[in-house]
Amino acid sequence: MRKIFVIGIGAGDPDHLTLQAVKALNQADVFFVLDKGEEKSDLVQLRHDIIEQHVTRPHRLVSAQDPDRDRTAPSPVYASAVGDWRHRRADIYEHFITSELADDECGAFLVWGDPALYDSTLGILEDVLGRGTVAFDYEVVPGISSVAALAAKHRTGLNRPARPVQITTGRQLAAGFPEGADDVVVMLDAHQAFAHLPDGGADVTIYWGAYLGTPDEILVSGRLPDVSDRIQTLRAEARARKGWIMDTYLLRRTPAGDRDDG
Amino acid sequence: MRKIFVIGIGAGDPDHLTLQAVKALNQADVFFVLDKGEEKSDLVQLRHDIIEQHVTRPHRLVSAQDPDRDRTAPSPVYASAVGDWRHRRADIYEHFITSELADDECGAFLVWGDPALYDSTLGILEDVLGRGTVAFDYEVVPGISSVAALAAKHRTGLNRPARPVQITTGRQLAAGFPEGADDVVVMLDAHQAFAHLPDGGADVTIYWGAYLGTPDEILVSGRLPDVSDRIQTLRAEARARKGWIMDTYLLRRTPAGDRDDG
Ligand SMILES: C[S@@+](CC[C@H](N)C(=O)[O-])C[C@H]1O[C@@H](n2cnc3c(N)ncnc32)[C@H](O)[C@@H]1O
Ligand SMILES: C[S@@+](CC[C@H](N)C(=O)[O-])C[C@H]1O[C@@H](n2cnc3c(N)ncnc32)[C@H](O)[C@@H]1O
Repeated sequence: MRKIFVIGIGAGDPDHLTLQAVKALNQADVFFVLDKGEEKSDLVQLRHDIIEQHVTRPHRLVSAQDPDRDRTAPSPVYASAVGDWRHRRADIYEHFITSELADDECGAFLVWGDPALYDSTLGILEDVLGRGTVAFDYEVVPGISSVAALAAKHRTGLNRPARPVQITTGRQLAAGFPEGADDVVVMLDAHQAFAHLPDGGADVTIYWGAYLGTPDEILVSGRLPDVSDRIQTLRAEARARKGWIMDTYLLRRTPAGDRDDG
Repeated sequence: MRKIFVIGIGAGDPDHLTLQAVKALNQADVFFVLDKGEEKSDLVQLRHDIIEQHVTRPHRLVSAQDPDRDRTAPSPVYASAVGDWRHRRADIYEHFITSELADDECGAFLVWGDPALYDSTLGILEDVLGRGTVAFDYEVVPGISSVAALAAKHRTGLNRPARPVQITTGRQLAAGFPEGADDVVVMLDAHQAFAHLPDGGADVTIYWGAYLGTPDEILVSGRLPDVSDRIQTLRAEARARKGWIMDTYLLRRTPAGDRDDG
């Protein structure tokens, strides 16, 4: 039976790798890598460095071009653009597993951060299994997420004692501060939704981090009205300089009962 | 200047340890360990094993009895019991840092899972700093949380595509399924709040895990009405056998728009 490892490699610092991940890397005969185009080549490079540094047995590397995701399409189209992209990615995975992995071999996907957070690898592997064209078993190795990395660098908890924390996307935050949680981590935010909160986020503290764990890391924290402009400037400069950016932030709001207007 | 590392050691599997954690362990002169009483000695043992296996330079181990937390006290009392417990723990930490660490030395706290999730170490270190009796710098090393471990073992994502996930406590869930998220991870649940959802959780799938990453690990998943009794039985048996239990679960609800009654 073919075996696949889905290995969380951490969110930017090569030392985020766990001992479990190093062991899994060393069981793989083949590594599958998707090429994300010139801009994000640092991200692909980290995967290559990890394999080179930690894999001590013979192995093959198989790569393919990641299908373009039409991110600019407006909303109803967006859903079908995502569906189509996912289908094409499943085609690639199916090809990887069917044609590049022998019956008794073990393959590995190296996933950014933790495979459980905003990553499509597990869903796509299930899609491939659902097609019934090839049988395989798979195992998931958890990784340090960008959320854990963000909190560590800011030396803060995600939750406040006995209270919830929500992890969400920029698109969701743009629709309003979530109900039911005063501590909110935002990922995948291309439009700085933090800058458009009602009241300018007067009762919100932000802990922001970009390129966490990498040599380009930037950290800013403070009352949102005080630091919002600075974050936007730093973000725009960094993005122009590198051609791409990855950033995440925690918003901590004064609980309703404790607010002046509450 | 005294230096403290707060090191996430993962949630039960010694191989959850990251390379960054191993490096931090090897910068410490002193390890501070709180003894949790007979019952949870496995948890203290894992810390000792990690130190023994990974620390290659001379070091000291300093331990103290963890102050009792009066968990049985009813609610208004509960808040002050927690406050009092936290104060006594800060006394212990202050003593550790003042009396057991020389001016130029480095100390380490080994924290279960990820220090950013439902852990008081960072807050207590801030309390100690706030007292102004001793100066120190500290650094946080993120760890694999029980949440990441749970998702990996069930080979599932925490969020659904483009949707939020909330992490909360059993006490909060007992007050109702949270607003604003259909994917909810529950920790610190001593009373199986999943069994008391309205409708018996007819539209909820549960992914449950106990003693994750350890030889005692138990996993159950399925439609909540189908597996709720089985989880409660398994949990009661395991708890009786070992004297304590740690469990976590993800609840995944059909989004309102897709529900039969929605
Ligand atoms: C497709 S999601 C993948 C998340 C990943 N699975 C994880 O656990 O971090 C990509 C988003 O993760 C966040 N992210 C990932 N790595 C990051 C880093 N090193 N610094 C800041 N944010 C990061 C950003 O919000 C980015 O938009
Ligand atoms: C005080 S909190 C600490 C959480 C820890 N900082 C983490 O990142 O997992 C303790 C709770 O974590 C969860 N937990 C910790 N380790 C676990 C494990 N190995 N298996 C299942 N649940 C675990 C349980 O819900 C438990 O009540």
